[in-house]
This record gives sequence, C-alpha cells and structure tokens, in this order.
Amino acid sequence: MSRTFVVDTTKSKHVRLHPVSISSVKLTEGDFWAGKVQLMEKVTLPLQYQIMEETGRMDNFRIAASKISGEFSGFFFNDTDIYKWIEAVSYLLAGNRNEKLERLVDEVIEEIKLAQDEDGYLDTYFTLSRKPDRWTNLKDMHELYCAGHLFQAAIAHHRATGKSSLLDVAIRFAEHIASVFGPRKRKGVPGHPEVEMALVELYRETGERKYLDLARFFVDERGKGLIGGNTYHIDHKPFRELDEIVGHAVRSLYLNCGATDIYMETGDESLWNVLERLWVNLVTKKMYVTGGVGARHEGEAFGDPYELPNEKAYAETCAAIANFMWNYRMFLVSGESKFVDLMELALYNGILPGISLDGKEYFYVNPLADRGGHRRQRWFACACCPPNVARTLTALPGYLYALSPEGIWVNLYASNVSEFEVAGSRVKIEEKTRYPWEGLVEFKVSGNLSCSLYLRKPEWCREFSVSVNGKGVEPVLENGYLKIERNWHDGDTVVLNLAMSPELLESHPWVKDNVGRVAIRRGPIVYCLEAEDNPGMDVWDLEVPKDVVLEEETRDILGGVVVIKGRGYVPDPDSWYGLYLPIEDAKQLRREVEFAAIPYYAWANRTPGPMEVWVKAR
Amino acid sequence: MSRTFVVDTTKSKHVRLHPVSISSVKLTEGDFWAGKVQLMEKVTLPLQYQIMEETGRMDNFRIAASKISGEFSGFFFNDTDIYKWIEAVSYLLAGNRNEKLERLVDEVIEEIKLAQDEDGYLDTYFTLSRKPDRWTNLKDMHELYCAGHLFQAAIAHHRATGKSSLLDVAIRFAEHIASVFGPRKRKGVPGHPEVEMALVELYRETGERKYLDLARFFVDERGKGLIGGNTYHIDHKPFRELDEIVGHAVRSLYLNCGATDIYMETGDESLWNVLERLWVNLVTKKMYVTGGVGARHEGEAFGDPYELPNEKAYAETCAAIANFMWNYRMFLVSGESKFVDLMELALYNGILPGISLDGKEYFYVNPLADRGGHRRQRWFACACCPPNVARTLTALPGYLYALSPEGIWVNLYASNVSEFEVAGSRVKIEEKTRYPWEGLVEFKVSGNLSCSLYLRKPEWCREFSVSVNGKGVEPVLENGYLKIERNWHDGDTVVLNLAMSPELLESHPWVKDNVGRVAIRRGPIVYCLEAEDNPGMDVWDLEVPKDVVLEEETRDILGGVVVIKGRGYVPDPDSWYGLYLPIEDAKQLRREVEFAAIPYYAWANRTPGPMEVWVKAR
Repeated sequence: MSRTFVVDTTKSKHVRLHPVSISSVKLTEGDFWAGKVQLMEKVTLPLQYQIMEETGRMDNFRIAASKISGEFSGFFFNDTDIYKWIEAVSYLLAGNRNEKLERLVDEVIEEIKLAQDEDGYLDTYFTLSRKPDRWTNLKDMHELYCAGHLFQAAIAHHRATGKSSLLDVAIRFAEHIASVFGPRKRKGVPGHPEVEMALVELYRETGERKYLDLARFFVDERGKGLIGGNTYHIDHKPFRELDEIVGHAVRSLYLNCGATDIYMETGDESLWNVLERLWVNLVTKKMYVTGGVGARHEGEAFGDPYELPNEKAYAETCAAIANFMWNYRMFLVSGESKFVDLMELALYNGILPGISLDGKEYFYVNPLADRGGHRRQRWFACACCPPNVARTLTALPGYLYALSPEGIWVNLYASNVSEFEVAGSRVKIEEKTRYPWEGLVEFKVSGNLSCSLYLRKPEWCREFSVSVNGKGVEPVLENGYLKIERNWHDGDTVVLNLAMSPELLESHPWVKDNVGRVAIRRGPIVYCLEAEDNPGMDVWDLEVPKDVVLEEETRDILGGVVVIKGRGYVPDPDSWYGLYLPIEDAKQLRREVEFAAIPYYAWANRTPGPMEVWVKAR
Repeated sequence: MSRTFVVDTTKSKHVRLHPVSISSVKLTEGDFWAGKVQLMEKVTLPLQYQIMEETGRMDNFRIAASKISGEFSGFFFNDTDIYKWIEAVSYLLAGNRNEKLERLVDEVIEEIKLAQDEDGYLDTYFTLSRKPDRWTNLKDMHELYCAGHLFQAAIAHHRATGKSSLLDVAIRFAEHIASVFGPRKRKGVPGHPEVEMALVELYRETGERKYLDLARFFVDERGKGLIGGNTYHIDHKPFRELDEIVGHAVRSLYLNCGATDIYMETGDESLWNVLERLWVNLVTKKMYVTGGVGARHEGEAFGDPYELPNEKAYAETCAAIANFMWNYRMFLVSGESKFVDLMELALYNGILPGISLDGKEYFYVNPLADRGGHRRQRWFACACCPPNVARTLTALPGYLYALSPEGIWVNLYASNVSEFEVAGSRVKIEEKTRYPWEGLVEFKVSGNLSCSLYLRKPEWCREFSVSVNGKGVEPVLENGYLKIERNWHDGDTVVLNLAMSPELLESHPWVKDNVGRVAIRRGPIVYCLEAEDNPGMDVWDLEVPKDVVLEEETRDILGGVVVIKGRGYVPDPDSWYGLYLPIEDAKQLRREVEFAAIPYYAWANRTPGPMEVWVKAR
C-alpha cells in the first residue's frame, strides 16, 4: 500500500511543505474528529451508497454499459457523486481496514469500468444516445468537471489500496481528453473548474507531464470568452488579471486550487501573485465568520465586498470545502499558518454544519440566521455537498500534520498517534488533547532525531505557553508556528497550552448586516444561539451587552459541547407604542435574561426554532 | 371672500373639531413657516407655472380646446399638476393679495373651461381623438383622480376668491360623473383614489348630497375586483375588511382621507373602526422616523411590517403629504393630539425635504441614507410631488389652529396673528415663538370671552411649563392638549415652555435596518449627518456612543438652523485585517471625532456627499 496523500507535493518544487499520508495518522478513540470519521464509516458512507442506488446514480453507469435498459436519470453531473463517494471511502481505507466497504468500492469501480467508451470517454449522460453531443457545450455540461472527480477518486483509490482498477479508467479518459484538447488541438475551458487540480494530481501520480500541461492549458485559456465570458464562470477576464474573487463560489475556489497546484509544479509567479491577491480579497471582504463563502443565492456566488447577509447567506457547504482545499494548497506552498487558520475555521464552522450529528442529513445552504424553517435534508437532486463532506472528513487525518526538511508541522490539533519519517529518521508522536473544547495539547515523542517541531499558534489564541519535558520554553514564532528545535529523544514530552476563552467578535464596519451585532467565538468554534437552549425568548430579540461576562459549561447535549452562557436583555416588542423611542425609554422595556450559545456546527439538530450567529449588541 | 378652509367640517356632524380659515391666520414675518409660504409665492409657484408651460401641461388644455393644434403630451394625468398648482395659488390668495397670481389663475381657469366637453367631461388626455376611450380603464387611466384634483382646486379657488369660474367647471364634471357612476348606473372604482375626498368636499361646498353618496359608492365598491383585485390598488379586499396598510402608499392614504371624510358626514362606525386599525398599523409597523411612508420602490408601496430600509427607502414626498392630510382628518374627528403629532412630524421631516431651500428643486424619493448621488430635480415627468408640496405649504396657516364649541386648539406652533370667532365672540391671538428651534411659545389674547385654550403638548416633549399672565398654572392634559379654561380679557398672556433638547432615538427591535443604530431628534426636527459638516470622515462610519452628550449650536447655514454636535468614534476600516475582530481589538482601531448633525429637511442643498439619519451606535 502506497502512501495516501490528499495532495501529493512530495516531489513538487515550489512548495515549502509536504503532506503526510492519511495512513500514518491514527486518530485516537474518543477524539472529536475520530468520532466524525467513524460516523462516516458506520453511517454516512453506507447510507450514501444506498441513496446512490435508490436515486439511479449507480444505474446510470449500468445503463451506459448497456447492462440494463433505461434512460439516464437525474442531473447530467450525477456521476461525480459516485466518484466523490469512492474518494471518501478510499481515504477511509487508507487508515482503516474495512473489507465490506473495500469490496463495495471494487464492485462500483467494475460498473464504472464497463461504462467507459472504447475511446476512453466516460460520462454516463453522454454515453449511448447523446454520444454526438460530447464536448459540444463545455460551458454548461460539466464533462471535464466529472472527469476531474473521476481522477481524484481514482488517485485516492490507488494510493489507498494499491489497486489500479480505477486509475486505469482515469488514465484512459485523461488520454482521451489530452487527445482532444490542447494548444494545437481543440481549445476549450471547463465551465466548472475541477479537472485542473485533478490533472495536476494525475501528473503527480503518474509522472505524465502532459496532464500538467493540460491543466495549465485550461487555466490559461480561461477568460478569453470561450465559454461566454461571464463572471459566473470566472471567464470574464484571464486568470492572471483577476483582482477580485467573484462568480460562482465553488467554481472560483476550485479554479484557485488548480492554479495553486500548477504553481507548485511550475513556479509560475504570475499565478502566485493572483492567488495571493484573491486570498486577501476573500478574507478581507467576502468571507463569513464561519469560513463559509459565497454570499448570494443567485448564481451561488460571491457578492460585492462586505455583502454578507446572514439570513439570506448562501454559504454552500461545498464552497467552504473548496475554501478549505484551497487554503491547504496555499499553506503547502508557503508554510504560513494564516492559511491553516482558515482551514480550521472552515472545517469546524463552514463544513461541519453541512452534516447532521447523526450523519444522515445535509445542509447545502448554510444561513447564519434562521427562523427555524431551514432544515437539513436527506439528499438533494443536486447532491454535490453530501459526498464532498464525506471525502473531506475521511481525509482529515492527512491534514493534521505536514513535513518539511526542517521538521514536523502540527496544523490541526486532535488526539492521535502518528509515525513519520523526518530527515531520514522514524519518529512517533502521541498527541493528546480535548481540542476543540480545551486548548491543552500534550505530545509525546518517540524517536531520536534532530529536527524542529512546529506548533501552530491559532489566530484566535492570544496567550499560550509551551513546555518541554516539564520546563517552560519560549519558542520562536515563525510564520505563525511555535518552533521547537532540539535533539529529540524517546519519551520527550511537549505541552502546549493555548488559552481558550469565549469572546465577542465584531465585524468590519462596512459589513452592513452586522452593524450593531456581535458573534461569540471560543477557540476555533463559532457559536450561535438556538431557540431550544433559550426558552422564553426569541433569540433574534436578544441583546448582548458588549461587556458581557461569558461563562463556559460543558453540557451533555449535541454529542457533548461546551456551551457559552451570559446575561443579556430581551426587549418587549409588544410594549412599544410607535416605532421609535428615546433610548432611555426603550431601556425600560427590556428584561434581563440568561442566554446560552451552542457551537454553530450543531444547530438544527433539535426542535426547529430561531437561530442567530450575529446577535444584537447593546 | 368666503372663509377658506382646507377641509370644511363646520357642518360635519361626526367631528369634534372645525378648521380655521387660512385667511384668519397671518404668519409673522420671520417665522419659519412664513418664510416657506413666501418662498412659494415669490419663487416656487411662478417657476412651476413656467414649467407647466414649458412642458406642454398648459398646451394640453389648449389642444383639447382646439385653440392650438397638436397631440397631448406627457403623462395622461398631467392635468392634475395644473389643478394642484391652482389649489396652491388659491390658498395663497386666501391670505395674501397677489394680483399677478390671481390674474394668472383666472387665465388658466379660462383655458381649462374651454377644454371641458359639452357633457361636462374634462380630461385633456381623453378629449378629441381619445374620446371613445373615456371611462374604459378606470384601473389605470386616472380620470377620476384628475377629477378629484380639479374639484379640490375649484373649491379652494372659490373659497379664496369667491369666484365660481372653476367651481362651475367642477360641478359640471361632477354632474357628468354622477350621471355615469352610481348604484343603479355603471359600477366603477378609481384606480387611484383622490376623488372620494374631493367629492365629499364638493358636497360640503355645494350641499349636493349626491356627491357624498358617490364618494361612498366609490369606497364601497372597492375590493370587489372591479379594477383587478390587486393589493397595489387596495382592491384586494373590501375597505371594511382591511387590517393592514398595504399597497401604493399615496393611493392607500388618499383612500383613507376619503373614507375619513365620509365618516365625518355619515358617522358610519364601520369605516372609523378600519381607519383606527390602519392608523395603528401604520405608526407601529410601517412609518419612517421622518413620518415618511411607503418603504418600497417597487409599486411605490408599503412594505411588510418593520420593512423600513434607509438607503433604499422610497418615502415619496406625496405619500408624506397624504399621511399629513389623513392625520388632519383623523384629528378633526377625534381631537386627539397624536394625529397632530404625526402631522408635525411629517411636515418638518417628510414633506419639507421634498423641496430645496431655494424653492426650485424637488425630491420625489426621500432616502434616509445616501452616498451623495441622490439629488433634488427641477422637475419630473411624473411631477405629482412639486405642486403637492406647494399646496400643502400655502395652506399651512389653516392647519395651525382648530376650533370647537369649547374653545381654541393650537396645533402647530408658529409666530402669527389670528382672529377667530369663538362661542359668538371675536378673539385675536398674537403668538410669538422661535419654533421649531425653541420651545418657548408666547400668546397674547385680545377679546373678552369665556372659553378654553387647548395647547398641544407635542409627543416629543417631556417637560413643559405653562403660565398665564406670568403665574404658573397646571393645566389639565386632555387628549394630549393642555387645557386652559378661563374668562379671557384683553391683554391676557399665556407662556408655554416646551423643553426642547436633542436626544437619541432607537427603533423598534424588529426594524432590521436600524439594528445598532440611533437617530437624533430635537423637538419636532429629525436630524441627519451630512458630509459637509463632518470633514475628514465618512458619516456612514461614525459611531455615536449611546451616552453621548449632545450640544446645540445655532448656525447661519441652510437658512439658519440649530446644529447638533457631539463626540463619536470613527473606525479606520483600512486598518482591519480580515473581517472579524475581537471587540477589544476593534476598539483600538477607532479615533474620536466631533460630529455635527443638521435637520434632515435641509440635506442635499450643498456639496453632494454621504448622508445618514440612522447612524451607528456604540
């Protein structure tokens, strides 16, 4: 079994960091994320497969293979749900034996294989009757998007299991695509980016340079009007001229992933400059406090700067995932913690809300305020989000660490036991923490080697302490990482204590929808107020004093969470006569109440009722 | 010359109060409103006539009369601009000799007379070539709306000058309408209400009962689907079933004026119940702090409860006028000060902003926040607002007082000298005040009679004192009026001191757009912040502490105003990295500034720049 990287930059030249294999990191029973990965294995992935069968997604392959008769059903991009599911299962198989799932994936791959055309083309919508329409509408028809997800699934499966069954299918299709598109062949641009990063990864997996070239070709051809020149498709101008993150959020961020991957392999600075510019634009003007992105329902798109409505937020789960994926790549290039800060933010608050606590229902849209009507669904006709969440969560062990010639980088904190090879030596790390509920993280190192341990100082953390073998040390802060350089010996311990206390956040003054409002954050977790924890009031009415004393309480609800409590005020809207009152009069019409906030990711898992992240401030 | 009432309820049975004649109230030179009336006489009304000529509005009458050849030009309801202009001039003539304007009106009336059809019909759009289309589209074509404005102009002219030249035209048209529509004739409903109140007034002026019956018929037939059953036309349900103020704001409020007028004459309690219900709905859910109404651009309409956007406010000047007109009628019925409170609010803050300080330009739409792009215009294709403002301002003397058998009611405070007949005796009142800038109001009574003087205690006023002949008294507060009952003798003086100091207002908690915002009010004046008085900052960024100390300063700008000053904070938006900061960090990125607020009515008379009524609070 080969090493299962989510992104394999081990040979990439223009990167600071390399990933660790998913299989090298074992989450510890009881860990926050271990529970999520187990949920994927036990509940979500089996149930998703069942739904793929129920909804005809598997049958589309059987029909394309002429194994059964019938018509293609569902959206023309439904193949990708299967591919993402395979990818998710593969990441799981990298770290865990699960013969049942492994066999199931093998069976599914067999069906996919049979659906592939003789020339390598594979898209069940365009096989059989629609064959003449292949590649005739790149703008809308998602053929290259489907190819991209096939490649990612195939690579993940190959890396996890060593089997090349799906990789062979992917390569045949990639060869077909490379025979159709390219500088001296047909010009074209995928209407929905995705294949770019997949092609770079296929290049990394196979060493076949033309896949990298093709990825670059697809990025370079963009913005020349080949697919209509719309902002929605990020085709309104060439990639290198972009100065604002716009258009369909998932398209935009998948494109950035691909461009970052191309930069990693080529060192094309003209790409990096754009990527840095777009990142600053994203985080300073267009991102929700949850790491969610894409403010507008219309076009599932980025809005204007500071256009971040709460109740009408779109913040598609897939867009938060794309944000996570892009930031991972930016981090690998730069080694800067600010990108991992965003990964952590999006993971806990933008992606995790996308799935119910029981692993059976999903949010496509993630509003930051709701009256109780927005509930997770078992599935969607356009079901991009459910398997996307699954593949992100099963890959999680691979995101915890990164490696560089200088040492080991700890990015996301979770209890785990891991083994790496660093500077030619094996090292084992046992990490224990109650993260995200507590900021205390303990490491035990086994191995004898000289290297640095880089511990990420999260952006949310202002006070921290580090000790090595019980003695306080003051590590250098380098790119947001606390660097501990030493000769490590068996049994060395490192204790990192990140002060974690609840605090109020406020928005940039130009975010109109958050004027006069505050949000509660504790460590990496963004909180919300939900009706069930706040009886006798409408949480939309609550006013939280800016100098509120926030208290923590661990409660055995919602799978076990730290709840944040405080005292605020609820006005009595019925006692207002007229709409406007002198503020002193209005003050009399309020009563003091105790409120309790829960992690935003856990909302909408109980009785429906009003919810709000940005509560009114007093 | 007869007594010139804006609304003549002297014989109406179901009212508590009667109006005073415009001619009985002389505003004193230097008074705030005296200046506005003079501006109408010297600048606005002559200029409006000039524009009526330039834009073909007068020619439409000449064409209809076949005096000149040509085609009708402009909107099909353009006749009403002339009618409102005549009404405005007539109110002026009631109180002031102005031979030039009187002659001009006579000439205009002559043109109108010639344009009337033989059967009494008068609407220059439908005369000549469009004659067959008369009365075929009541929903859209405004024929009855035009008739209503003709009647109001004719009545005003008759009352002011004693001339029946236009009244005869009006009666001929009214007779024609009464011959077409009615219980056993054609059923119909005006798409745009207006004729209802005009018909009641025509009944009051002529004693002809069928006009009242016809007004009632038009109200009763409404909501039966005769004009499409739309909310926009307030035709979605019968008037007596309305429980929410909805639809096109001017239509809705003119309809309420008509229904109130009908109630005054008939005592139909089923109408009064609706009117009270709609009023409560308006003031508790759908009115701007300025008294402006009609939140939505789409349909120039009322929005949902608490839907009161600031930058995108519609708040048509005509709708504030209609609000003023309706509240006057509600006051006459009830004698309750709350209706006059709204008249005062709308007058200073909803109507007055509709015209520039030089009397030459107009707002149709009155946003409560702007970036500097919204400016008054010289005229509009749909020019309902300009002459509507003019007729409201020239009628103003008539609104200052009201009479009842018990005595004299002082509604709006202004310096004036007036003479009335009360309880069979003549009484002269000399009122001196610097209102709206100061709350001190002095009255000198000449006459010998026993009656009550009712002084309105404005809703905004919390502390006040009253003295009679220098001795403090404690009058009974009755329906919001301070009642001073005594035997008056020549030279009696009454001094009313209304404590007037600036204060912050806040909105009902459900007005989403005002969350975290405050407005400044002083006495009857609502303030705004405009760029010119606040150099070195963007007033949209300003944060005003809720415990700010507000100071007053009389400045010789904008015609002389009291400016409100205070110290607030301006965040530095550029120094934010990222969109979200802990509030303690955000606090560091602010600097203290002095701000100055001006009366909202005076905005957009200088260099364009950002303006805001609801500023951010801290």
